[in-house]
Amino acid sequence: VPPGLALGPGGEFDLIRSFFGRDGSVVPPGVRVGPGDDCAIVVGDGIALSTDMSVEGVHFRREWLSAEEIGYRSTAAALSDLAAVAARPIGALVSLGIPVGDTPELARQLTLGVHRALDVAGGVLLGGDITRTTGPLVVDVAVVGEATVPVLRTGSRVGDELWVTGTLGGAGVALRAWLAGTEPADQARAAFAAPVPRVREARWLAERELMNALIDISDGLAGDATHLAFAAGVAIELEADAIPLHPALAAMADPPETAVHLALTGGEDFELCFSAPVGRVDALEPEFVREHAVALTRVGRVVEGQGVWIRDTRGGVRPLATAGYQHFETSF
Amino acid sequence: VPPGLALGPGGEFDLIRSFFGRDGSVVPPGVRVGPGDDCAIVVGDGIALSTDMSVEGVHFRREWLSAEEIGYRSTAAALSDLAAVAARPIGALVSLGIPVGDTPELARQLTLGVHRALDVAGGVLLGGDITRTTGPLVVDVAVVGEATVPVLRTGSRVGDELWVTGTLGGAGVALRAWLAGTEPADQARAAFAAPVPRVREARWLAERELMNALIDISDGLAGDATHLAFAAGVAIELEADAIPLHPALAAMADPPETAVHLALTGGEDFELCFSAPVGRVDALEPEFVREHAVALTRVGRVVEGQGVWIRDTRGGVRPLATAGYQHFETSF
Repeated sequence: VPPGLALGPGGEFDLIRSFFGRDGSVVPPGVRVGPGDDCAIVVGDGIALSTDMSVEGVHFRREWLSAEEIGYRSTAAALSDLAAVAARPIGALVSLGIPVGDTPELARQLTLGVHRALDVAGGVLLGGDITRTTGPLVVDVAVVGEATVPVLRTGSRVGDELWVTGTLGGAGVALRAWLAGTEPADQARAAFAAPVPRVREARWLAERELMNALIDISDGLAGDATHLAFAAGVAIELEADAIPLHPALAAMADPPETAVHLALTGGEDFELCFSAPVGRVDALEPEFVREHAVALTRVGRVVEGQGVWIRDTRGGVRPLATAGYQHFETSF
Repeated sequence: VPPGLALGPGGEFDLIRSFFGRDGSVVPPGVRVGPGDDCAIVVGDGIALSTDMSVEGVHFRREWLSAEEIGYRSTAAALSDLAAVAARPIGALVSLGIPVGDTPELARQLTLGVHRALDVAGGVLLGGDITRTTGPLVVDVAVVGEATVPVLRTGSRVGDELWVTGTLGGAGVALRAWLAGTEPADQARAAFAAPVPRVREARWLAERELMNALIDISDGLAGDATHLAFAAGVAIELEADAIPLHPALAAMADPPETAVHLALTGGEDFELCFSAPVGRVDALEPEFVREHAVALTRVGRVVEGQGVWIRDTRGGVRPLATAGYQHFETSF
């Protein structure tokens, strides 16, 4: 405890504290005790929990995103794990490590983004912790939802189709641009800065009992399909032609193979990937698209074996390297 | 995303991942889905949740504690928030920010300590996230428990007695020694490095319906009594003579006033502080001490007014500065 970090009564973040328990928010069902006591208390049949830590310089840079966007994106990434089991979001607990060189205003801006992501998903801030750090900004988000009948990673069966929501590779294109020292196009930047956790889409699909297994795409489709295959002891065969490419990929000058590679390994698209019995999804796909304005695309199938394979445009099938986007990290 | 932080298949922490889902642990009631999927799923009537972030250089230093002790202490501190609402621990989700200069062995050592704290409290590791950071070590722990009838901060009534478990000031003595460049005595060091979250004690008291309001002592009794007073719109009067001093305080050469001051403001003792109707606790105190081998001491009473006051040995009553131990921090 460096002496310079000791403080008098109250602490500099007391104003932020009052901001956390925002008046006027609609409290979703299941919150028995909100922020302000030693614990929040939630009720529900099957409480889903996950945590996701975002660190400046590893997951984002402040040259790329505003503080409000950092708060939004960190929270949206965590909420995507609730979508990945088809849970209904209840809320989040958010820990902020604020660098010593920053003012409390940084915490306030981050919190604006946290609230925006929770508003989008239908949850509230249940609690948290704000502390100083001598290092980079840290945002750790623990999300809380209700999943009466969770859809897990384990249920894929040989013969199932593999589907994804939305388009892939947008966030990867933005990242590639920033790392090359250029500014990404608006669409790609938005894919990275403002992903929408697919909580409503996942619940819509779960209510119709369409899915045998479900995961969100946070490491890239290649990596997350590998998780699905491993969890069920099966193989997954992807169709290169079928991968739904983000518009930003189509706008690139690179050869088509590069676009598909980025879509498979770019990571952090936060779309859904699920397996479903043959023919079940086709009939409902138009209604899904109408309801959510999000694409739904069959990208492959579940076969006997292990690992993830890709069938290219010339009909050849080759094993896919399982490496998705990695931050020196493991999540469990 | 610094290029040096990108990794190939698997990631360096994959071994740790397998360690997290430790075989042979006794899974407590209420865990429907453990680690390994996108979310853990717990069930129970009233799920209590809290989060607590510990940062190297702010909450601890590596010269003071081993990695295993850092993992233990960070988890015990978070579990103390479950004790503070009389919840039964179910488990924790733990996010680790591992400095780039450290090996995965650091994560393994931290996790040993996390498991030890969970074993003490009766919970299991439900999930987490490990990432690299260019800054100091960060351990963020989200705890999960069942609190069917939580005891909150708000229930104190004028006329109640105020009680604390254990003794106070031990962790503060250790901190003072380290900050002065000396090594603390064993007893004081243990108070800082190995606090026992009072989850069993809190549940014992709650089952006997002894408490009107409850908090854990993480900011120092002065600060936490202030929280209780504010939450109920009452004042609290402490008896200077009654404060149970940690043995390490008795061993100091300082005047008695300094010992009492450290016991009131030292912070991070993680004992319980609760208000109870007059006379209810006395009858059960011997049984409590026999059962838990932890002291139970009446330290004051709830009166009309606001704030926290202290009655000194000469009978004078003065307002107590509310500043407890602060890390530039707010928790909510």
